[in-house]
Amino acid sequence: MAVYTEVSDEELEAFVAQYDIGAVEGCKGIAEGVENSNFLLQTERGSYILTLYEKRVNPDDLPFFIGLMEHLARQGLACPTPLPGRDGRTLRELCGRPAAIISFLQGLWPRKIQAAHCAPLGRAMAEMHVAGQSYPGRRANSLGLAGWRPLFELERHRADQVKPGLEAMLAAELETLEAQWPRDLPSGIIHADLFPDNVFFKGAAVSGLIDFYFACTDFLAYDIAICLNAWCFEPDGAFNATKARALLTGYQQVRPLSAAEFAALPILCRGAAMRFLLTRLYDWVNTPAGAFVKRKDPLEYERKLRFHAQVTGPGAYGLDPVAS
Amino acid sequence: MAVYTEVSDEELEAFVAQYDIGAVEGCKGIAEGVENSNFLLQTERGSYILTLYEKRVNPDDLPFFIGLMEHLARQGLACPTPLPGRDGRTLRELCGRPAAIISFLQGLWPRKIQAAHCAPLGRAMAEMHVAGQSYPGRRANSLGLAGWRPLFELERHRADQVKPGLEAMLAAELETLEAQWPRDLPSGIIHADLFPDNVFFKGAAVSGLIDFYFACTDFLAYDIAICLNAWCFEPDGAFNATKARALLTGYQQVRPLSAAEFAALPILCRGAAMRFLLTRLYDWVNTPAGAFVKRKDPLEYERKLRFHAQVTGPGAYGLDPVAS
Repeated sequence: MAVYTEVSDEELEAFVAQYDIGAVEGCKGIAEGVENSNFLLQTERGSYILTLYEKRVNPDDLPFFIGLMEHLARQGLACPTPLPGRDGRTLRELCGRPAAIISFLQGLWPRKIQAAHCAPLGRAMAEMHVAGQSYPGRRANSLGLAGWRPLFELERHRADQVKPGLEAMLAAELETLEAQWPRDLPSGIIHADLFPDNVFFKGAAVSGLIDFYFACTDFLAYDIAICLNAWCFEPDGAFNATKARALLTGYQQVRPLSAAEFAALPILCRGAAMRFLLTRLYDWVNTPAGAFVKRKDPLEYERKLRFHAQVTGPGAYGLDPVAS
Repeated sequence: MAVYTEVSDEELEAFVAQYDIGAVEGCKGIAEGVENSNFLLQTERGSYILTLYEKRVNPDDLPFFIGLMEHLARQGLACPTPLPGRDGRTLRELCGRPAAIISFLQGLWPRKIQAAHCAPLGRAMAEMHVAGQSYPGRRANSLGLAGWRPLFELERHRADQVKPGLEAMLAAELETLEAQWPRDLPSGIIHADLFPDNVFFKGAAVSGLIDFYFACTDFLAYDIAICLNAWCFEPDGAFNATKARALLTGYQQVRPLSAAEFAALPILCRGAAMRFLLTRLYDWVNTPAGAFVKRKDPLEYERKLRFHAQVTGPGAYGLDPVAS
């Protein structure tokens, strides 16, 4: 849970006065998200999200993120749209932090994932990938293949405290990933963090994607691999191939996968599991045990990584490559 | 910051369907308040607060609290009003906890208290006291005079860890309070926790009082004493008599204080400071040091207590008793 920047009413009212959205009627800190301070802002005109970008977001990346959301919204995608102030600017400063007012997206994120969520998720992700193709911005994936080894070196000496043998497992897996990582798959803008709390639904339909602050340029199919990890395992650790099939089928209704992308799914899934395993491990060993922040279990991703490492081919993800 | 009950979308939608407020459009956990889980719920009809009552609220007290809010709202007071479902009930269950949907109050609570806030605060508090006179419910103040000694006994052995000499100071002060506490002041429903984050303003006017979950039956002037502590000290510890005068003047525009109430202000203020000193001390010694919850400094109230203990009379609170 985020530690919030405290915004005074005077500062808030002066900030909102720079926009054409009427007077402030209410503003409440939202207890979701860990990267930024988010407030649900209500004015005479409606509801908005006020975001203050905290230190985990590099201010130099903000024009890329803000521009991307504007671009995707213009392409008709349901995603939060930064509001321009009267001066036309979408990004300004509040309490010494970069800040923006973003449109409010209706919907709820699914706490309990059903197979019925996965096809709409796949379609929405593919639509975002297609719409992103015309976005001129680029941003390297700092948490992609090249970022994993430095992260591993940083925390390898503490890995075995979390689970005996974890350091050796990560070292071996990293070598495999570096040797087998694909080189020439279709790439473009990916969301890179499309977990259930970033996908809003109204009933069975996706009403919007949020939180583009990990978005970057990488293989499009890597985004699918992140979702296969985040959406298709059951709480008991079992991989649900029905959900995976629905996700891939939905995706391909909008953007069919090439044979190379399809063949690469197992290694991409291993890489995606490695990425979240490493960042969770980092947070785990760097968060005090008594802290009220809910630490996410790194070993959840160690188990997912083992699953992907043992599959015999992309058919494990529920779709027969020939049939797809 | 609250640890929230996680409400699934299915549970939420089934819960909201019991009310006549349209379909859910959004629901976000609010990062304010520590006692309960609060969500800003948006439906086709508007904005509401969904509250799940967590363990610090005694379920047996809920009919008193809910009934009080309904009563005050009927008397024309701006306060959150519990919504009845289609079955007429305002209190039901969600995720195994008592839960209610409450009307949404516009306004912001003042992060930086100005003297201009204090007269409207005084008037709003007096209006609540007057409106509460016709409420038939009664609830003993478990954190009033009779509750302080048990709380002190519970933590006295750790008080000197917070500040050397604190245990002796508290013991002596408690004896004074027990000896000098008034016996026959006008009593009725008090809010008992009217801190700035429970008072919403729109511009210079109070738009509503919230969070009645400490409300109880006690001396009305004790509520004023709580506010003199919570609103009239500057961050550097100085007592701001201008704010106190504004508060008392505003209050008396609605409900004049008797000579006995006025004379009792110093001892009531000492008692109010003791109450928050003791509960903060309890939270301080029972919250792990690394926890992300912001512990409130008990010594802030030790300093306030010392201030009230040394005043020579109620004139210290900015109003000449003769002139009042």
